[in-house]
Amino acid sequence: MSGAVPDYSTLGWSLFDGVLTLTLERPDALNAFTVTMADELEDAFRRVNDHDEVRAVVVTGAGRAFCAGMDLSGEGNVFGLDESLSPTPEDLRTRLDAPEIHDGVRDTGGRVSLAIFECRKPVIAAINGAAVGIGATMTLPMDVRLVSSRAKVGFVFGRIGIVPEACSSWFLPRLVGLPRALEWIYTADLLGPEELLAGGLVRSVHEPDDLLPAAYALAHRFTDDRSPYGVALARQLLYRGAGATHPIEAHRADSLAMFHTSVADGKEGVAAFLEKRPPRFTRAASEVPDVFGGDTP
Amino acid sequence: MSGAVPDYSTLGWSLFDGVLTLTLERPDALNAFTVTMADELEDAFRRVNDHDEVRAVVVTGAGRAFCAGMDLSGEGNVFGLDESLSPTPEDLRTRLDAPEIHDGVRDTGGRVSLAIFECRKPVIAAINGAAVGIGATMTLPMDVRLVSSRAKVGFVFGRIGIVPEACSSWFLPRLVGLPRALEWIYTADLLGPEELLAGGLVRSVHEPDDLLPAAYALAHRFTDDRSPYGVALARQLLYRGAGATHPIEAHRADSLAMFHTSVADGKEGVAAFLEKRPPRFTRAASEVPDVFGGDTP
Amino acid sequence: MSGAVPDYSTLGWSLFDGVLTLTLERPDALNAFTVTMADELEDAFRRVNDHDEVRAVVVTGAGRAFCAGMDLSGEGNVFGLDESLSPTPEDLRTRLDAPEIHDGVRDTGGRVSLAIFECRKPVIAAINGAAVGIGATMTLPMDVRLVSSRAKVGFVFGRIGIVPEACSSWFLPRLVGLPRALEWIYTADLLGPEELLAGGLVRSVHEPDDLLPAAYALAHRFTDDRSPYGVALARQLLYRGAGATHPIEAHRADSLAMFHTSVADGKEGVAAFLEKRPPRFTRAASEVPDVFGGDTP
Repeated sequence: MSGAVPDYSTLGWSLFDGVLTLTLERPDALNAFTVTMADELEDAFRRVNDHDEVRAVVVTGAGRAFCAGMDLSGEGNVFGLDESLSPTPEDLRTRLDAPEIHDGVRDTGGRVSLAIFECRKPVIAAINGAAVGIGATMTLPMDVRLVSSRAKVGFVFGRIGIVPEACSSWFLPRLVGLPRALEWIYTADLLGPEELLAGGLVRSVHEPDDLLPAAYALAHRFTDDRSPYGVALARQLLYRGAGATHPIEAHRADSLAMFHTSVADGKEGVAAFLEKRPPRFTRAASEVPDVFGGDTP
Repeated sequence: MSGAVPDYSTLGWSLFDGVLTLTLERPDALNAFTVTMADELEDAFRRVNDHDEVRAVVVTGAGRAFCAGMDLSGEGNVFGLDESLSPTPEDLRTRLDAPEIHDGVRDTGGRVSLAIFECRKPVIAAINGAAVGIGATMTLPMDVRLVSSRAKVGFVFGRIGIVPEACSSWFLPRLVGLPRALEWIYTADLLGPEELLAGGLVRSVHEPDDLLPAAYALAHRFTDDRSPYGVALARQLLYRGAGATHPIEAHRADSLAMFHTSVADGKEGVAAFLEKRPPRFTRAASEVPDVFGGDTP
Repeated sequence: MSGAVPDYSTLGWSLFDGVLTLTLERPDALNAFTVTMADELEDAFRRVNDHDEVRAVVVTGAGRAFCAGMDLSGEGNVFGLDESLSPTPEDLRTRLDAPEIHDGVRDTGGRVSLAIFECRKPVIAAINGAAVGIGATMTLPMDVRLVSSRAKVGFVFGRIGIVPEACSSWFLPRLVGLPRALEWIYTADLLGPEELLAGGLVRSVHEPDDLLPAAYALAHRFTDDRSPYGVALARQLLYRGAGATHPIEAHRADSLAMFHTSVADGKEGVAAFLEKRPPRFTRAASEVPDVFGGDTP
């Protein structure tokens, strides 16, 4: 089942040579984000976890934009929220998946960000054009951002009276530092490739035709001759470690991750290294345990 | 009441065109910090929260210094601590505002930093000259630091046998990274504009006469045509998100913030965007809820 | 007793002018890491805390390498783990020091990292040559990394099917930012001096003969005319503050640290400053309290 191509209406799914390309596919609307796109992205990133042929994911946009932000073409409440509710912090702590909270209150971009956060494969954003609003914030939980020389990225929420979402308040300060995060959110400007590179948000800038090849090449550097199980655990460790309060929490988790990898793919890795041959790893990412354990905070 | 000009002895309060300038005003003492100044700064930043005409705050110093640090001209225990006490971590957890802890143990700079942390408006430091000790650390919870070409900033605590304070151990590593934070604290050197810029602590360096105009221009870029309510929530999200352990905490908070902005100023923002006209936002920063909820850690 | 030179088999201990040099000393094996070396490093860093003549620590390698990583010359399970166990997150939370968990599950590098994290003296890595695997990650809890122009640093775990360890998931994102941490871990490349410098992992690059002198000079800038008690508290504050969720936690801790330093070495520091003479501090690092208190998370 995991091998079937999902039938999405807003998202292309294309697997080649171990790299899954997810393409935001509403080109006539500059790939503007809808609740359907959120649901399909969330589904895709959760599906990837049990799909062992997928070694890495590249996300890009069809046509000239990456994603122009929330689709504002509807009337009134474009975010689909239930205005009759009066949600409290307690509701979000204890009833996160109750239908009225899930559908009427929860930020759709945040559901996507959490699915990417929990992904067991490296995720690369190939930002081919404008990435605005949720088009910008959805790339933050991806591991690397490559941009076309024509790309612009804008955290423009302030211009329409709303706030940055999609868990960006957790990610952005950790990606570019708190001072730059504050300034980019306050100014709500469209940022060009040079500014994005100087700020550390993007790894590299490419001519438009070179963008996807660069993303695929990087995906292969991340995954060829690697243990998918080890890569999945490393990804889990780094993101959870970046948020942990004390190194002892990292120690507990990486002791377990090291234990589980050492007694399996690690033996093959050491043998291959000593025999100067490529390793033949056998453990799958779909087998990866939660090495942090306990409840979500 | 919120419109009255407070009568401070160490601090100037000047509101023009939505930007409040707070001026450290003990120029004959290079604006050295006193307990009175701490009380007045704390009062000013709390007062700003309910003062809807204030859209942003600029902090600067009168005369040639920004703030030369704690006033050391007293005798003996210049920090005003009650040496008969033997405070424990438990005292600070459970009796933070008990009079003997508040007055005899708590770091005065930290009280100021917490008030700035909780401010609902963008805060810009216009560092016009020497900013030393608490003069340096009080700027860390401000959102942006601009410096005059004549400015020096020094985390000089180690030279007099004390430690960095004013919550700087939370802020400094998040502003300049842990390695640079450690080195600046250990060396306790005075840092010039180039080093501050390279380290990412300051945003830009200005000729002395251009410093305040640059600060005001930036304040207007942060607030003109913005929802004060949305800006206040964005500030809360970024600072709390920067400290959160897991993105789910950001998701809970920014779902609520997005909900509250979307059903109010967000509608006007979308309408104005579609009609290609400036928005007319109506929600006030003083109405902003705590979207994180729960107890302070 | 604290003055005795420990009798280690893998580690040189040399104290001169207040700076302790710890030398990884298995040059014929490129100082490859063993369980014995882990035990000796852990012992050394804990011993340093009560050894008041040691003002700073420099760690370097004998011969041409810093540390070539885990010694892989054994057969099979080179990490010495007990494969009959099925450890859970709960085991690591509640039985961290139970013999079978301590010896059969816990990551040896992590035990070293935690000891360095808790060290009361500044720690400088003088990376004289290849620092690979645990040779790289053991330097992350050190305060500063200086490298020889011949050094290479590699987080190569992925090449042998294992994960980054030694609490590196807590440290690396805080030292170089999350995007670079992810890329360095995924690519598992050997990084040269320029890349390390650009990434902010190392402070400076030196000709091989200049490396140790530069490390010693920096150690003296960190400690000469400083209160050892104040330095130890500042180190504790910055590392714990970097992980704290809210500035109030920093405020509680730095209020206590400020209180304890102000009523002792701080008085001498202020007096010396006013009298324009070098201070004569008297408090020892070995007296430093835990200003955070409470249980480890």
